[in-house]
Amino acid sequence: MTFEEARAQFPVLDRLAYLNAGSAGPLPRSAVEAARASLDRDLAEGRGGKAYIDDFLELRDRIRRGIAAVLGTSADLVALTDSTTRGCQIVVAGLDLDAGDEIVTSDQEHFGLTGQLHGSGARVVVAEADEEALLAAVTSRTRLIAVSHVLWTTGRRLDLAGLRRSGGPPLLVDGAQSAGAIPPDLDGADFYTVSAQKWLCAPEPTGGLFVRDPDRLRVALPGFLAAERHEADGSFVPRAGAQRLDSGWIGAATLAGLEAALGVHPEWRYEGGAKVASRCRELLEPLAEVVTPAGHSTLVSFRPPGDPAELVAALNERGVVVRDLPSRNLVRASCGWWTSEDDLRRLADGVAAS
Amino acid sequence: MTFEEARAQFPVLDRLAYLNAGSAGPLPRSAVEAARASLDRDLAEGRGGKAYIDDFLELRDRIRRGIAAVLGTSADLVALTDSTTRGCQIVVAGLDLDAGDEIVTSDQEHFGLTGQLHGSGARVVVAEADEEALLAAVTSRTRLIAVSHVLWTTGRRLDLAGLRRSGGPPLLVDGAQSAGAIPPDLDGADFYTVSAQKWLCAPEPTGGLFVRDPDRLRVALPGFLAAERHEADGSFVPRAGAQRLDSGWIGAATLAGLEAALGVHPEWRYEGGAKVASRCRELLEPLAEVVTPAGHSTLVSFRPPGDPAELVAALNERGVVVRDLPSRNLVRASCGWWTSEDDLRRLADGVAAS
Repeated sequence: MTFEEARAQFPVLDRLAYLNAGSAGPLPRSAVEAARASLDRDLAEGRGGKAYIDDFLELRDRIRRGIAAVLGTSADLVALTDSTTRGCQIVVAGLDLDAGDEIVTSDQEHFGLTGQLHGSGARVVVAEADEEALLAAVTSRTRLIAVSHVLWTTGRRLDLAGLRRSGGPPLLVDGAQSAGAIPPDLDGADFYTVSAQKWLCAPEPTGGLFVRDPDRLRVALPGFLAAERHEADGSFVPRAGAQRLDSGWIGAATLAGLEAALGVHPEWRYEGGAKVASRCRELLEPLAEVVTPAGHSTLVSFRPPGDPAELVAALNERGVVVRDLPSRNLVRASCGWWTSEDDLRRLADGVAAS
Repeated sequence: MTFEEARAQFPVLDRLAYLNAGSAGPLPRSAVEAARASLDRDLAEGRGGKAYIDDFLELRDRIRRGIAAVLGTSADLVALTDSTTRGCQIVVAGLDLDAGDEIVTSDQEHFGLTGQLHGSGARVVVAEADEEALLAAVTSRTRLIAVSHVLWTTGRRLDLAGLRRSGGPPLLVDGAQSAGAIPPDLDGADFYTVSAQKWLCAPEPTGGLFVRDPDRLRVALPGFLAAERHEADGSFVPRAGAQRLDSGWIGAATLAGLEAALGVHPEWRYEGGAKVASRCRELLEPLAEVVTPAGHSTLVSFRPPGDPAELVAALNERGVVVRDLPSRNLVRASCGWWTSEDDLRRLADGVAAS
């Protein structure tokens, strides 16, 4: 697949310099067509009967394999979820933490992760977003280290394998800005979340959760696929594999769109994304302070000379979609393998003009 | 709106005797059109920028008001969720139960509820599905009574107000088979769930959660709308009202479909549904043992002379969509205000022929 063919799958790119996959990726035509076909079928044929349920479960299995392939793992270690937030809830709830426990996290995490850590009732210890600082914050009470693979603010990539010490606490990885954007690397991760609506360009809300050892995490928030069989008091024998941790029902149309979206990414996705991010830095560096370390991710965060929110609004006016990061004085451009030189020039021209 | 006009909103009813709203309601054409329009807009314009987010949040507010209207309450007491399962998780997680606590439930509940009760870590006490038996099971350790308004198995309706004693444990109500099907009645309920894809005929998965006193339930599973502001350790100042308990992101197309679905129900919805259920009993009583008490709900559950699963398959062959209730030897027909005399006769003819 050539760059032009691959890019042509996304109609929004005809109009906008859409540098927004860190929030929500461009939708491919095939995903919307699949979702529409699914809706039309449900409208005409209803949502019931054995064939409907069988098709639906097979579709979930295919998607589970597709997300496993993105992560470079096997399908029985992947739960289907609707978000990274939900994946974090599933992990934290299953660990049965209380006020005497500690979780170590970084100072550059999204509320989708930190909100769940706080919700667990454990004490949340915030360290600098740096491997050594994180490890230094671990104590005998630490039950979990929870960090992003790629930080949503600065775009820095953390070394996961270095954070997972033998005999040390398990590692929950927020993969929202990495899964589908950079080559898979689960080394060190006990749990790894996927937000499919971002770099996988799927309908929202969709996602997954890698669980290295599903038998060892309690199923505290059981969805409709959790139980092989259950009793009247809700106790149950869980199904095999990570399926027991699936977060619940996902709409048939959303699933159909997700399956199609998993199929639009070319083999050169990761080199492509990295090259675009590198070129984006090159164009922005003369104009603003780029804070993302080179070669780390597909995000390019920069501190503009003026007000970030005003710059984002001005760029929006010019058909350039990026976001600012409130209270951090940063603007973030998300560079996909689908991003063109022209998209990047529109961004740089807009920054230069502001 | 006449019966014919109202029924004509659902294309599936042209083909099938679709008696399946207890699992998933018939989809109205307007809901699918709204979802398609939303998908088309996202395809062409992307999913980002201030206007996109503003529209999305306004849509959520309109839906919150719509679900509040279905329940006969105010929007600030309604959280948006994706299911009854999720609503139960939000309540149970917020109560911070442990192994020393008890929850009283009935022996006729869905795993969507009981799975979460078990997941809480509390001891789940199962009583007969009868108001007196439930109250008799309450002890000084009981922290919650959790039951359905309408039981998904027998279709019996419980008297909620009778279950809520002053000074007694709070009441969580699984409203999956009642919200939108029978007149709203939150009397006695501290928490009441809505499954919008069932009797409200919305895309799946959608729903809501009524919370009588949002300030008193801890936000243990915070979604993206939970926090007015938050700190790096995930601690946060919650937003006003039940919005703080929203379960997370719901796709724009799904929301658009849900809003449209809320608009298809005629004023005579409740009398209509009750009349259809009563007529359904009348036709089935000579053919099978009807277990649903008269006048309780829009479900009609019956024990057929032969094997329930075989009967359901045979009915499916005839274009009649109902379900069996595994291990209870029952078949369940869901009677909506949209159900016609012909639909019911097709069901009765199929039962008679088996």
